[in-house]
Amino acid sequence: MTACAGALAALSICATATGATTVAVASGPIASAPDSERIAAQLRDAAMAGHDLAYDWVSELTTRFGPRPAGSDSEQHAAEWAAARLKSLGFENVHIESFPLSAWVRGTGNAQLTAPTAQSLTVAALGGSPPTPAGGLEGEVVIFPMLADLQAAPPGSLAGRIAMVAQRMVRTDDGAGYGAVVSARAEGPDVAAQRGAIAFVMRSAGTDNHRLAHAGTTRYVNGRVAIPAFALSNPDADQIERLAALGSVIRMRLFSSAAYIPGAHSQNVIADLRGGDRSDQVVLIGGHLDSWDLGTGAIDDGTGTAIVVAAAKLIRDLPRRPRRTVRVVLFGSEEVAQPVPPSGAFGGHSYADNHRAELASHVLAGESDLGSDRIYAVALPARVSDSEFARAVLRVLTPIGVLPAPRSREEAGTDIEPSVEAGVPAFVLFQDATHYFDIHHTADDTLDKVDRAQLDQNVAAWAALVWLAADSAVDFRASAAPAPQS
Amino acid sequence: MTACAGALAALSICATATGATTVAVASGPIASAPDSERIAAQLRDAAMAGHDLAYDWVSELTTRFGPRPAGSDSEQHAAEWAAARLKSLGFENVHIESFPLSAWVRGTGNAQLTAPTAQSLTVAALGGSPPTPAGGLEGEVVIFPMLADLQAAPPGSLAGRIAMVAQRMVRTDDGAGYGAVVSARAEGPDVAAQRGAIAFVMRSAGTDNHRLAHAGTTRYVNGRVAIPAFALSNPDADQIERLAALGSVIRMRLFSSAAYIPGAHSQNVIADLRGGDRSDQVVLIGGHLDSWDLGTGAIDDGTGTAIVVAAAKLIRDLPRRPRRTVRVVLFGSEEVAQPVPPSGAFGGHSYADNHRAELASHVLAGESDLGSDRIYAVALPARVSDSEFARAVLRVLTPIGVLPAPRSREEAGTDIEPSVEAGVPAFVLFQDATHYFDIHHTADDTLDKVDRAQLDQNVAAWAALVWLAADSAVDFRASAAPAPQS
Repeated sequence: MTACAGALAALSICATATGATTVAVASGPIASAPDSERIAAQLRDAAMAGHDLAYDWVSELTTRFGPRPAGSDSEQHAAEWAAARLKSLGFENVHIESFPLSAWVRGTGNAQLTAPTAQSLTVAALGGSPPTPAGGLEGEVVIFPMLADLQAAPPGSLAGRIAMVAQRMVRTDDGAGYGAVVSARAEGPDVAAQRGAIAFVMRSAGTDNHRLAHAGTTRYVNGRVAIPAFALSNPDADQIERLAALGSVIRMRLFSSAAYIPGAHSQNVIADLRGGDRSDQVVLIGGHLDSWDLGTGAIDDGTGTAIVVAAAKLIRDLPRRPRRTVRVVLFGSEEVAQPVPPSGAFGGHSYADNHRAELASHVLAGESDLGSDRIYAVALPARVSDSEFARAVLRVLTPIGVLPAPRSREEAGTDIEPSVEAGVPAFVLFQDATHYFDIHHTADDTLDKVDRAQLDQNVAAWAALVWLAADSAVDFRASAAPAPQS
Repeated sequence: MTACAGALAALSICATATGATTVAVASGPIASAPDSERIAAQLRDAAMAGHDLAYDWVSELTTRFGPRPAGSDSEQHAAEWAAARLKSLGFENVHIESFPLSAWVRGTGNAQLTAPTAQSLTVAALGGSPPTPAGGLEGEVVIFPMLADLQAAPPGSLAGRIAMVAQRMVRTDDGAGYGAVVSARAEGPDVAAQRGAIAFVMRSAGTDNHRLAHAGTTRYVNGRVAIPAFALSNPDADQIERLAALGSVIRMRLFSSAAYIPGAHSQNVIADLRGGDRSDQVVLIGGHLDSWDLGTGAIDDGTGTAIVVAAAKLIRDLPRRPRRTVRVVLFGSEEVAQPVPPSGAFGGHSYADNHRAELASHVLAGESDLGSDRIYAVALPARVSDSEFARAVLRVLTPIGVLPAPRSREEAGTDIEPSVEAGVPAFVLFQDATHYFDIHHTADDTLDKVDRAQLDQNVAAWAALVWLAADSAVDFRASAAPAPQS
C-alpha cells in the first residue's frame, strides 16, 4: 500500500489527514467539520471528479463473461476473476464461499400466434418454468386484465387454455410499479394451473416498448412450477390485446426446452478492508455477480458490484484505515428462485448462514442493486435518523443531490435481507429507477446503458456514507429506539 | 358520397366551397387566396385537428397481418384487405396488379461467440443471404472498421474466416447517415467472399443501442449472394469490439436456414380519385405494403400507406373533385432485392411497366416511406421551385412547420423511382428521420412507435400539397427549366 496513491493524492489529503487544513469542496468550506466528515467530503469529490475503476469493473465483467446465470460456468469464472481483482486492489481476507444450487437453464424457446393470423411473438420463459412438451403446446388464449381477474376465474374454466395476464407496469422514479406487477409473475402460473390452464403468459414486468421480453423468476409451489410460464414483450402483448379487441379468437403456440440442473453450485466473493481500533465490527456492502441470461447483467447488477468495489477502494486508498472493517460481498445466485426454501436470495442466505456468529458484530449493511442512475435519497436505521451522524451524512451528500428519504426503512436489498432479518441494521441509498425497468432482465441489459456520470455519483455517495459509518462508533441497532414511522 | 360527410363538414366547407367566405385558419385569414388555396388550408387544418383514418389504417394493417414480407401470404392478404378498404372509402378503379417474384425467407438463425467465451449474439440474416450449412459454420472473426478496409484486404487473406465491418451509423435528421453505411450491407458479402471469407457480419445499419438487429437486403452478384451474411445488433458489435480490444481472438458460430422461393408473387394495389376536367392527368402518391419480417412494418411503411390513403380520402370527401386524378398506389415488394435485374423496387418496376403508356400523363409523383415523424421541408420539381405554385404551397404548409427544402431534388422514393426515371416529375416531403433508424428494419417496428400528432401533420401536408397539384394546371415537367442546383 502506498499511502498517497490513487485519486485522493491529488487532494493533498496525505499531507493533512490528521491536521485541520481547510479544504474547499463543492458545498463550500467545511473547516470546522471533524476529520472524518472532511475525509468523507474528499472521498465524495474524488469520485465525482471521475473514477475509472467502477466503469472499468463493469465493462470488463460484462465483456469477458457476458451473461452470468446462477450456477453457470460463467458466473463461477466471473467470481474467480472478481476475487483476483479484489486481491490485486489490496483487499484482505479475499475468498470465495461456494454453496449448492439447483440451477435453471432456459434452453431454447419460441412462441407464435396461430390464430387469427400466424405471427411470431417475442417471449422469455420465466425462471423456474418447466419445459413444454417437445412438440410445444397450443391453446386458445384467455386474457385477464390483472392477476385478481385470473384469481376470480372458476376452477376448470381454463381447461386446455393459455391464461394471459395483461397488466401494465407503471413508470415511477422509485420502482414502485414493479411491485404492483411482479405478483403476477410469482403467483400467476400456480393460479392459472389451478384453473386448468396448460400454460401461463404475462405482459412483461417492464416499462419499455421494445420487442424484448423481461425475464424473471416465478415461484415454486410444493417444489415445482406447475405449468410452462412466459413473459411476452410489451409490443407483443399490445398486439394480442388489439387482435382480441377486433373480435378475434387468439390461439398461441408455445415451446420451451427449459431444464433444471440440480447438482450445480454458486458462490459469494468476500473481501475485507480491515478496520482500525474496531476492526471486529463490520460494515457490509454488496451487490450480486449473477445476472439473467438474456443480457450481460450490466445494470443488474454489474454496476452494483462496481459501485461497492470502487467505493471500498477509494476508502482503501486513504492514508488511514476507518475504525471498523468494511466488507465487500459480491453475492451469487440472487436472481433465480430455488425449488425448496429459502426460495430467493440464495447467496444472501448462504452468507447469513456461514457468518451467523459474526452477524452480531455487523454494525450496518447496504446493497446496490437498482442500476446505476443517480442516488436521490438516503435512509438510515431508525435509531440514527435524527442524530448528529445523520446530519453529517446529509451535509456531505446533499451537495450531490441526496435528500433524506421520505420513508425511514424498506427492503434494503435481496441479498442482505437474510442478514437484516437476523438483526443487522441497514441503510438504503435510493436510486432513480425511472428508466431501470426499461432494461431490467432483458437482453438490453448491456454496458452501453451505463451512464458514467451517474455511476460516479453513486460511487461518491457510497464511499462517503460507508466511510462515515465505518469510521464512527455509532450504534445503529434499534434497541430502545422508537419504531420507524411508516 | 355524402357531400358534407367527414371531417370537413365541421369547417362549413360544404356551404361555402364555391363562395368567397373568409375562413380563419392557423396562419390567419386568407380571404384573398384563390379557392384552391383556401381548400388546401382547410384540408390541412382538418388533418391537424386529428383524423382517425391514418392511425386506424396502420393499426388494423399491422395488427391483422403482422409482418408482410414480399411474396408472403400475409402481404397478399394485406393487399386484399387494402383493396376492399379503398373501395369502401369510395375510391374508383380499385384493383390489384400481381407480378412474379423470387421471395426470400429468413427461416431460423442464430449466432454465438465461441471464443474467448461462449456468448449468444443477436443477429439477423441479410435479405438474400444463402443459408449456412445445416450444422452452421464457425470461424475466426476479422474486424474491419469500414467497408473500405475490407476492400483493402488482399485476396485470400480471409480464407476460412468471418469478415466483420464495424462502421457505426451516424444519427442525422435527414437520414444521411444511412447512405454512409448501407454500402457495406450491399457490397460487403461479395467483397468478403472475394477475399476468401466464409461469412460476412456487420454492425447494424441503425442508430439505436437495443439488442435487435436491423434486417435489410444485400446485393445479388451474378444472381447470387456469395456467402451467408448477417447484421449484428449494435450492443453485440460493441461487445465484440471490446473483446478484441482486450486482446482476445474472436471466434463466432453462425447458423441460418434462409431459403429462396422462386415461384412467388407480389402485388400493387391501385385506387383512383378521378379528377374533373383534366382527369386523364394523374398525380401519383404511394407507399409500400410489404415489410420486413421481424417487425410488423408500422413505420416502414404502414404509416406511409396510411398517410397517402388518409390524404386522398380527405380530398375525396371535398364537395368538388380536383381537376386531375389522384392515384394511390400501395406497392408490393419494396424491401427485398431480386436475383435478376431490376434488383430493387420490384413493385415500382411492375407499376412503371404496366402503366408505361400512361406515364406521359402522370404529372407528378410522391412517396411516403420514411416513417411518420413530422415533415419539415418540401422539394418541388425544379421547374416550379420558384413559382406562384411553390409560393402557394409554402403559404399553406409553413404554418405547420414545412420550409423550402435546402436541395431541390433527390431520390423521391424507391417505388416511384422507375416512374421518375421514365420522366414523371416528383416532389419530396422531407420527414424528420432523427429517430427513424432506431427502429427501421427491426422487430421494434410496431404500432406503438407511431406518434399520432406527427402522423396527423404528415396527412395535413400531403392532403394540402396533393390537392394543390391535382387542382392546378401547372406543368411540372422540367422541359426548358434550368438544371437543379446541387
